[in-house]
Amino acid sequence: MSQPVDSAVSAVRTYVEQHRAAFLDDLAEWLRIPSVSAQPDHAPDVRRSADWLAAKLQETGFATTEVWETPGAPAVFAEWPSDDPEAPTVLVYGHHDVQPAAREDGWDSEPFEPLVRGNRLYARGAADDKGQVFFHTLGVRAHLAVTGRTAPAVHLKLLIEGEEESGSPHFRALVEERANRLAADAVIVSDTGMWSEDTPTVCTGMRGLAECEIRLFGPDQDIHSGSFGGAVPNPATAAARLVAALHDEHARVRVPGFYDGIVELTDQERELFAELPFDEAAWLRTAKSYATQGEAGHTTLERIWARPTAEVNGIGGGYQGPGSKTIVPSSAMVKLSFRLVAGQDPGHIEKAVRAWAAEQVPAGIRQEITFTGSTRPCLTPLDHPALQSVVRAMGRAFDKPVRFTREGGSGPAADLQEVLGVSVLFLGISVPSDGWHAPNEKVELDLLLKGVETTAYLWSDLAEHWRRAP
Amino acid sequence: MSQPVDSAVSAVRTYVEQHRAAFLDDLAEWLRIPSVSAQPDHAPDVRRSADWLAAKLQETGFATTEVWETPGAPAVFAEWPSDDPEAPTVLVYGHHDVQPAAREDGWDSEPFEPLVRGNRLYARGAADDKGQVFFHTLGVRAHLAVTGRTAPAVHLKLLIEGEEESGSPHFRALVEERANRLAADAVIVSDTGMWSEDTPTVCTGMRGLAECEIRLFGPDQDIHSGSFGGAVPNPATAAARLVAALHDEHARVRVPGFYDGIVELTDQERELFAELPFDEAAWLRTAKSYATQGEAGHTTLERIWARPTAEVNGIGGGYQGPGSKTIVPSSAMVKLSFRLVAGQDPGHIEKAVRAWAAEQVPAGIRQEITFTGSTRPCLTPLDHPALQSVVRAMGRAFDKPVRFTREGGSGPAADLQEVLGVSVLFLGISVPSDGWHAPNEKVELDLLLKGVETTAYLWSDLAEHWRRAP
Repeated sequence: MSQPVDSAVSAVRTYVEQHRAAFLDDLAEWLRIPSVSAQPDHAPDVRRSADWLAAKLQETGFATTEVWETPGAPAVFAEWPSDDPEAPTVLVYGHHDVQPAAREDGWDSEPFEPLVRGNRLYARGAADDKGQVFFHTLGVRAHLAVTGRTAPAVHLKLLIEGEEESGSPHFRALVEERANRLAADAVIVSDTGMWSEDTPTVCTGMRGLAECEIRLFGPDQDIHSGSFGGAVPNPATAAARLVAALHDEHARVRVPGFYDGIVELTDQERELFAELPFDEAAWLRTAKSYATQGEAGHTTLERIWARPTAEVNGIGGGYQGPGSKTIVPSSAMVKLSFRLVAGQDPGHIEKAVRAWAAEQVPAGIRQEITFTGSTRPCLTPLDHPALQSVVRAMGRAFDKPVRFTREGGSGPAADLQEVLGVSVLFLGISVPSDGWHAPNEKVELDLLLKGVETTAYLWSDLAEHWRRAP
Repeated sequence: MSQPVDSAVSAVRTYVEQHRAAFLDDLAEWLRIPSVSAQPDHAPDVRRSADWLAAKLQETGFATTEVWETPGAPAVFAEWPSDDPEAPTVLVYGHHDVQPAAREDGWDSEPFEPLVRGNRLYARGAADDKGQVFFHTLGVRAHLAVTGRTAPAVHLKLLIEGEEESGSPHFRALVEERANRLAADAVIVSDTGMWSEDTPTVCTGMRGLAECEIRLFGPDQDIHSGSFGGAVPNPATAAARLVAALHDEHARVRVPGFYDGIVELTDQERELFAELPFDEAAWLRTAKSYATQGEAGHTTLERIWARPTAEVNGIGGGYQGPGSKTIVPSSAMVKLSFRLVAGQDPGHIEKAVRAWAAEQVPAGIRQEITFTGSTRPCLTPLDHPALQSVVRAMGRAFDKPVRFTREGGSGPAADLQEVLGVSVLFLGISVPSDGWHAPNEKVELDLLLKGVETTAYLWSDLAEHWRRAP
């Protein structure tokens, strides 16, 4: 059966090459919209981003495109029914909001002015996640063009949310409210990455996330450190001690109950991780870091894929300007995030962290703790038939065997899994060097087009090998 | 001898009352100059402040007024010789620079727009230290007016520096370079306070200060906390652990060698402290704080006056904006200050802190430590004859017995003591509620004028009771 495959591949590649320039122009237009969901002053941009995407999906041919309101930022929904009523329904998930970015954070170019250098497209959101949402538009067109169809081989739905980078605070409620419209046989999440440019992989799990901000209040105002220091509690010291108390000497999180009920790695999974071509020195270069460290008894891959962690994302208090200011600061702040693995529930973790944090407050300091968002962890069953379709489609696009990984980051995929009662699969083409959440985020253009190509094969493969449950 | 004293007091008070309005107008003009030495963009203002003061001292009658350049901010020197060649020489020390201040820090009015409300003058520098420098101008005029002299009873010199709030980095070199011009029989520092409005006191010692900024560098840029967190070191965590390691469970500073050689309080001094009318609840209100804490085995007064401390003045790293950002930050920063007591040398403390800090750095984190300024501690001998003159002059101005305190804050007085080889006395009228280094700094107008009055008596008393060593 190799000849027909090859000719399909060739046809898809020709189609993608012909439409590449217009596709990249459109993506650049979208990337220019600074849809930063964490910053309230960018709320109009997040809305503009949703409107832009809805219009573009309509232009692509989706039968229905809608902007769905939430109490926060809007999501985009689109639907394109198959002409085969018995075809399975696939819901593609992604997000159109992006992380904060400013030139002075260390960007070599404007984060919201897309720039192609060599074979890379630089912009905030290029990989996380606009690029990976956008490959579905050209992908479904290629699928139609080379199969001669007028509608996709599967019932295709897209749900592209606008608050993923803010912890998806309203996503679960939206999915619950719209569960009928979102009903599907499987979810395909395009918001992850693969092992490397040379090693295409499919991700089988994502960590969850619980985020909080802890504010510590001492004196009613900054006070003189000579007149009062050493005799009253300092909230910056309290903040530092709280952070220092987060981990024990084995880098395990000290919050009581934190590890309760987690799904531990099997020996087989640990071996699978160990067999991947992991080059720690190269990984450190990608991490732009100078040492590995982490939970005792685990490898780096285990630490980032399969172990829960606690991280300080920000800390602040007192005078941070030039020179010195001899004060006891009035307040201090810590932003913490906890990555969760299967078996951990964000609600339980919030309770555990609140109880632990309350015990860290010294006399004379007032503490306020706010949980700013949470995401459940998820794991895909390795024997899911649709997973095999994804692996085959990716294998054709990349001309290489496809391996399995997990993702250390977090997405609201687990909510879809739970509310819709279906399995979640992952299809992403981003690589670790893409710089998610960092300055100079980019996407590799070759891989972006492999993403287009993969979906061009995927819908046919799914329709052929996986029928709806009767 | 009470009748002549009373008439002198009455004459001084009448003189002060007559000149009060013009005196306050002039002071307000000076307070409008935002002479913040810690902020480089205010350098022109610090210079303007020096020029303003030099002109004002010339107008007051000083024979010589000079602006002295340093590698940093300029100082002001003024000299007014006595017509009695055998009179002692007194050098008054103060500073014309101020702490940083911004309306949004919690000020009820503009910090550099002086405002009289009731019997208080609000402005950055009202008490620390422009107000307390400025009472010497009207004081010497009152001294001349009521004694009928055309020159002061003592040889009077003023040295008003411009970098005190930045740790006086060039002060010692300036004093060494100009030691001949500064030669005096005693130094009077007007940069401290007294116990309370009702309890006039003379300060007999000041703590020293060593300040540093420690920067911790992790990843070359902010990196995704999901992809990398928990597997590489986080500089914000390292900063927090460093701060947490500063004190032991008895609130003693853990830096090895920190307490070596310090002059411990005698039992008599501890009793003297204990006899002061100290109301801890009232003190806490002044400190705008909600609990006392500090080195075990010491009272609050001992902790702030006679024990060395380590304090966090600022901490920062990672994302501090609204919402969340799931990163491992690239860097973090801590500003620390150490208050020192007699027997501690800032140079030794710097070495000890550097050695200690170097041991706190985890693998993969780079540390930079910068010492931004230091001040020596000092203690005045209680039996100094000039101290008795200060006590008598203050007693006349306040109509009350004068007690002894120490000062928890720091000033470069010890450098004057060491370089010029003379004793240092303290004459200050500020009270703890004046809000030094804090929003809504103010000076009590009644006390400010008692400062004027004290100096009007002081120069005569000194000339009468204390002759130059032959």
